[in-house]
Amino acid sequence: MERELKFTVLGGGSWATAIVKMLSENQERTTWYMRNTEALEHIGTQGHNPNYLSSVEFDPDQLELTDNMDTAVSNSDILIFAIPSAFLKSELDKLTVPIRDKIIFSAIKGIVPETGLIVGEHFHKNYDIPIENIGVITGPCHAEEVALERLSYLTLACADTHKAELLAKNLRSDYIRTKITDDIIGTEYAAMLKNVYAIAVGMAHGLGYGDNFQSVLMSNSIREMKRFIKRVHKMKRNINDSAYLGDLLVTGYSVFSRNRMFGNMIGKGYTVKSAMMEMSMIAEGYYAAKSAHLISTKFEKETKTPILYAVYEILYEAKNPKKTFQKLTEKLD
Amino acid sequence: MERELKFTVLGGGSWATAIVKMLSENQERTTWYMRNTEALEHIGTQGHNPNYLSSVEFDPDQLELTDNMDTAVSNSDILIFAIPSAFLKSELDKLTVPIRDKIIFSAIKGIVPETGLIVGEHFHKNYDIPIENIGVITGPCHAEEVALERLSYLTLACADTHKAELLAKNLRSDYIRTKITDDIIGTEYAAMLKNVYAIAVGMAHGLGYGDNFQSVLMSNSIREMKRFIKRVHKMKRNINDSAYLGDLLVTGYSVFSRNRMFGNMIGKGYTVKSAMMEMSMIAEGYYAAKSAHLISTKFEKETKTPILYAVYEILYEAKNPKKTFQKLTEKLD
Repeated sequence: MERELKFTVLGGGSWATAIVKMLSENQERTTWYMRNTEALEHIGTQGHNPNYLSSVEFDPDQLELTDNMDTAVSNSDILIFAIPSAFLKSELDKLTVPIRDKIIFSAIKGIVPETGLIVGEHFHKNYDIPIENIGVITGPCHAEEVALERLSYLTLACADTHKAELLAKNLRSDYIRTKITDDIIGTEYAAMLKNVYAIAVGMAHGLGYGDNFQSVLMSNSIREMKRFIKRVHKMKRNINDSAYLGDLLVTGYSVFSRNRMFGNMIGKGYTVKSAMMEMSMIAEGYYAAKSAHLISTKFEKETKTPILYAVYEILYEAKNPKKTFQKLTEKLD
Repeated sequence: MERELKFTVLGGGSWATAIVKMLSENQERTTWYMRNTEALEHIGTQGHNPNYLSSVEFDPDQLELTDNMDTAVSNSDILIFAIPSAFLKSELDKLTVPIRDKIIFSAIKGIVPETGLIVGEHFHKNYDIPIENIGVITGPCHAEEVALERLSYLTLACADTHKAELLAKNLRSDYIRTKITDDIIGTEYAAMLKNVYAIAVGMAHGLGYGDNFQSVLMSNSIREMKRFIKRVHKMKRNINDSAYLGDLLVTGYSVFSRNRMFGNMIGKGYTVKSAMMEMSMIAEGYYAAKSAHLISTKFEKETKTPILYAVYEILYEAKNPKKTFQKLTEKLD
């Protein structure tokens, strides 16, 4: 049965490109959807994505390239979404065929801005996908290192771990190890929250705090993340597993992280608007900070999340970053 | 009573220099011992240590400088040792006055090579210091950032937390926050083990592994450290506190860490001997790896510590780093 399963990757960015590369190590044919028709044509004729991870070579015969959402969905049993969360809704609105019977894996680390939901919940609530058919692909994993075939570990989360294993089997290779978990909600929140903490790290750096403080901030972030996730979804998990702590570290310590960069600009005195214009893209953590704050206000009396609050206040209430961080440092230990 | 307490810092390196700086923010007079008489004279006349953190300015009137161990010990109630563990025994051998009635704080992150004991145990067993008079100063804290007065958090550990607070009060300032714990054994083992993990991170880097793998290695290291310490000294502690995880992160992610640098050279193909000669100093983690291995062999059947084992095998059994790490990657997740 497993041999017959077909996969579609949706998205044209670096993480989508990395996932197609990983699948192509195992699958004879993979469907790849993106909006950008020029890029599609380039991939079909030249064998590489001109915009992201352009060093990765594809065999066009292994790819079914399409800019049609209906085709992308109809072609396959397992759909892997790697579209920025800000565009997910508008992309899904193009669909005229049902996706209810598909297995959906989200490789998106964020919140759907229009609904404030994590991606798995968005699919479940708005597309009637049963929970056991929804999964998450999480790192710690920079796409750039997949391109270089540097050893990386992925975690596949699905309430039905058999489905997580189905995908894992098709991603594994010499340079990709996989781990299975049924903690889909916890891993998805972790993937989203880590972007907010990466913004916090960037802000601290922009404000002139050093490595000693960054390690304290990270140590407090993982404890705060543990409290937050436990509150949202109580189940047994080791927050120091790679999918939680590892993912936080690879993002927080990466100088290439868009979220960290965005925070750094805010720390250096840019307004939110000018930082966004300067970066000509929106950091996922910007939306995540709002949603996380909204969720945490429901339990703030019992569970303190001072780092999330500080980031929210600076981004959405125009609080002074320097003063907000001075207050924050009193709450850390 | 507390106003009358006197402090001696023993050591001439960067961490000793940083501690004297912190104390000088609060104490009118601090005794500072080191072997290097030229450096002492320079500090006494020029007001800064010529060899370490030379940008830090001292007021010589606030310092009682001495190269005599007996004077150093007799002068004070609280002795803070910041001498490399490799020289601790030979320095203590110079003593002709008792130290039994002193409060001892160790700022040494290592193992006494001659006895294989962590520093606190060494003082307790060989100098009859009662456990409640022994403490540990731990980070996460690079001395270089103390010199720059960048906000840093220290943890003071002592079975008698009143004594930890006594020292804390004299270290705190605008740029130093402190935390108190009674987990002296746990913090001391953490401070020692993190150097072994920093060697592992360096080895991985030298072998060509990337950031994705490093975050997995870190995530596995903190879990391994938790298992190890719990086995050695069972008590309630949150391994993600700054004194454990924070300290691991600031060392493992620092490109200036001597331990990481040492591991990096081994990963790149240097022999242990040539790496040591090239660095013209010995990384603390080298001894720690041996002691940690010795301890962990006692519980290896129940508690797995594959990272410590890999580092030990490479350093002490001349195992091939590349092959040893390939095997190690199979044991991580």
